[in-house]
Amino acid sequence: MRQSRLFTKTTKNISAEEKSLNAQLLTRGGFVDKLAAGIYTHLPLGLRVINKIGNIIREEMNALGAQEILMPALQPKANWQVTGRWDELDVLFKLKGDDSKEYALGATHEEVVVPLLGKFIFSYKDLPISVYQIQTKFRNEKRAKSGILRGRQFLMKDLYSFHADEKDLGEFYEKIKESYWKIFERVGIKEKTYLTLASGGTFSKYSHEFQTVTDAGEDTIYICKKCHLSINKEILADINPVCPECQSEEFDVKKAIEVGNIFKLNTRFSGPFNLRFKDADGKEKIIFMGCFGIGLDRLMGTVVEICNDENGIVWPANIAPFQAHLILLKPDDKESAKEAENIYDALQKADIEVLFDDRNLSAGIKLKDGDLIGIPVRLVVSGRNKGKIEVKERAKEEVRLLNLNEIIELIKGL
Amino acid sequence: MRQSRLFTKTTKNISAEEKSLNAQLLTRGGFVDKLAAGIYTHLPLGLRVINKIGNIIREEMNALGAQEILMPALQPKANWQVTGRWDELDVLFKLKGDDSKEYALGATHEEVVVPLLGKFIFSYKDLPISVYQIQTKFRNEKRAKSGILRGRQFLMKDLYSFHADEKDLGEFYEKIKESYWKIFERVGIKEKTYLTLASGGTFSKYSHEFQTVTDAGEDTIYICKKCHLSINKEILADINPVCPECQSEEFDVKKAIEVGNIFKLNTRFSGPFNLRFKDADGKEKIIFMGCFGIGLDRLMGTVVEICNDENGIVWPANIAPFQAHLILLKPDDKESAKEAENIYDALQKADIEVLFDDRNLSAGIKLKDGDLIGIPVRLVVSGRNKGKIEVKERAKEEVRLLNLNEIIELIKGL
Repeated sequence: MRQSRLFTKTTKNISAEEKSLNAQLLTRGGFVDKLAAGIYTHLPLGLRVINKIGNIIREEMNALGAQEILMPALQPKANWQVTGRWDELDVLFKLKGDDSKEYALGATHEEVVVPLLGKFIFSYKDLPISVYQIQTKFRNEKRAKSGILRGRQFLMKDLYSFHADEKDLGEFYEKIKESYWKIFERVGIKEKTYLTLASGGTFSKYSHEFQTVTDAGEDTIYICKKCHLSINKEILADINPVCPECQSEEFDVKKAIEVGNIFKLNTRFSGPFNLRFKDADGKEKIIFMGCFGIGLDRLMGTVVEICNDENGIVWPANIAPFQAHLILLKPDDKESAKEAENIYDALQKADIEVLFDDRNLSAGIKLKDGDLIGIPVRLVVSGRNKGKIEVKERAKEEVRLLNLNEIIELIKGL
Repeated sequence: MRQSRLFTKTTKNISAEEKSLNAQLLTRGGFVDKLAAGIYTHLPLGLRVINKIGNIIREEMNALGAQEILMPALQPKANWQVTGRWDELDVLFKLKGDDSKEYALGATHEEVVVPLLGKFIFSYKDLPISVYQIQTKFRNEKRAKSGILRGRQFLMKDLYSFHADEKDLGEFYEKIKESYWKIFERVGIKEKTYLTLASGGTFSKYSHEFQTVTDAGEDTIYICKKCHLSINKEILADINPVCPECQSEEFDVKKAIEVGNIFKLNTRFSGPFNLRFKDADGKEKIIFMGCFGIGLDRLMGTVVEICNDENGIVWPANIAPFQAHLILLKPDDKESAKEAENIYDALQKADIEVLFDDRNLSAGIKLKDGDLIGIPVRLVVSGRNKGKIEVKERAKEEVRLLNLNEIIELIKGL
């Protein structure tokens, strides 16, 4: 894409209220725009990142055999009364429709997915089954001050799994853990992410959170110095300050962001909706469930909190808005303009996503914008390097002169 | 995908309240599930259709140079007060958040996109610009009785364009018309669709609707017998029963569904938000706008209303959930089971999307399900045709015996 055509521009002027680093960088770079506290528009660059994150998640969920659906945000009050959460869940947005019909805006989707699957699960042959969606959640958050980390509206992948017994749920739970590690590796935050024991809510003793260490985090985790198990501070009182895995009493205490949460729901929701199946022996049995979430906006914000330097964002290659940032330093110089156009064409033919800065602006502004936007590979065409292009990876200091084939190889190898 | 793994099943049992043909067929086939009046879940088959429709629209909008963004559904009351539509728009869902903050659920997005673009448009050099999204709209409809044709929540492509003057808006308006014709051609409803003069609301004399003729339509259109211009009944009183194009007085009167709507907003929204730009002569001028919508669910429903027979849906190839439906008639016969598996592999290697009915059910049920689901090409493996496969196109009567290469050629040519 030609940057001269991109309607967003980088900006230095951002609201003083925008205190979180992720929102500052994403706003300055033109990735998101704040409509109200905790409510953001995804601009073209941000939407590209979100779609890449979404597709990575989708691939890993499909690999598990999960099936993608799309459930409504507008949900009848009656469904929420079945589980008691119409009154229980304090973040639930409620509204009245025509004829005084009342609705909740989906903060989570157990109240929809359980009766839905009840229409299709009859016997043990229909189990196990898992469905997921990438969909907009609404939560009436008291505080929405962490940029895109905690929104009043946000994109979430939520997967719901249905099992004949606890053992099958347990096995699937372990598989999902592996999928989540793959996702966090692919988006570039695995090294800073810890599997963390957390509260299981009312339905099971513990759940597991995936917590990514950063000072922007709202949670505090205790990481066992011996076995690296992590424990959310909120349950530390329950287990005394002793690692339940190795009994060590020494911890590193860190701020962290919950980037994923996996829950054994057991029969918490299948019970109220009476979701049963007929087993091989002909007996009706209750279904066991799990639920597994990842917030897409939050994941993007977490990556930004971790992957940045004083000049801007440093996107991991897999989720960068573009693979290469081609910068024409002197658009007035016809020879280098022609060279840049040729490189732009060649890279696109090689199936590389390129942002081409063809704008009539000073070299200084263009290079600064490039660092702020944070595309992994910068290619500078200045007209003085005769057939070679000046290449700099955003995450490295080194500047190299490479030819086109070498550049394509470099980018495809990232 | 193996049909034995697809969690949805076809069903004959649908609510007596579901009177519209589109919802009946889509529910029976396992494409959608009704959560409440006008509120549907997209099941795996339905989501595949919606995504194909979405990608066709996306390609045509990108070809116009429009840039994709994603705006929030949760919108501050203040924005809607600026335009006066907080009180005016009767389909607006309203809700209270924390601290009694009030929000509208986006029924349309002028109130968000205009102030957004105001942050990025400064001079005539920034114009024209157009942005679009594929996003969930909410409308508090009094009646939601036409299946997925008129939902309380639905997916919509809405594009907003920004221009330096009326002339430029007019030129873009003509380009969008062409894009819309391409879209309706690609999804298979162009032949039954008429460009229709309709009310322009408060902001311009007329708008244009794209109306597709079917008895399920909620609108009535008058199609000029001479020049084929169509006129929405709602404005017929204004212009007397005379074609404004050719002055003919003879019309065909038809029921129709509005599948697209294009509007010259002119300064209706740029005015209240004071959206201006600096022209080449240094003068501040008001921006002219257009808005251009297509409902994705409605488009899917319209296709179903038009493309069906007594046995089920007959999907146009471009938006079918799968390209081929491979049916193994006798799963117990090892030889034909092996043949079917080989064909399944070969088609997938040829990049063809196949639904493979490997279920342990009677031939009759499988063939009936196949017709109901409506995938364009049915391949039946019965073990009696030695290397040839029985091929039937859903839209045709003829059954042929073809080899694998011929089948691949047939499917890719559709």
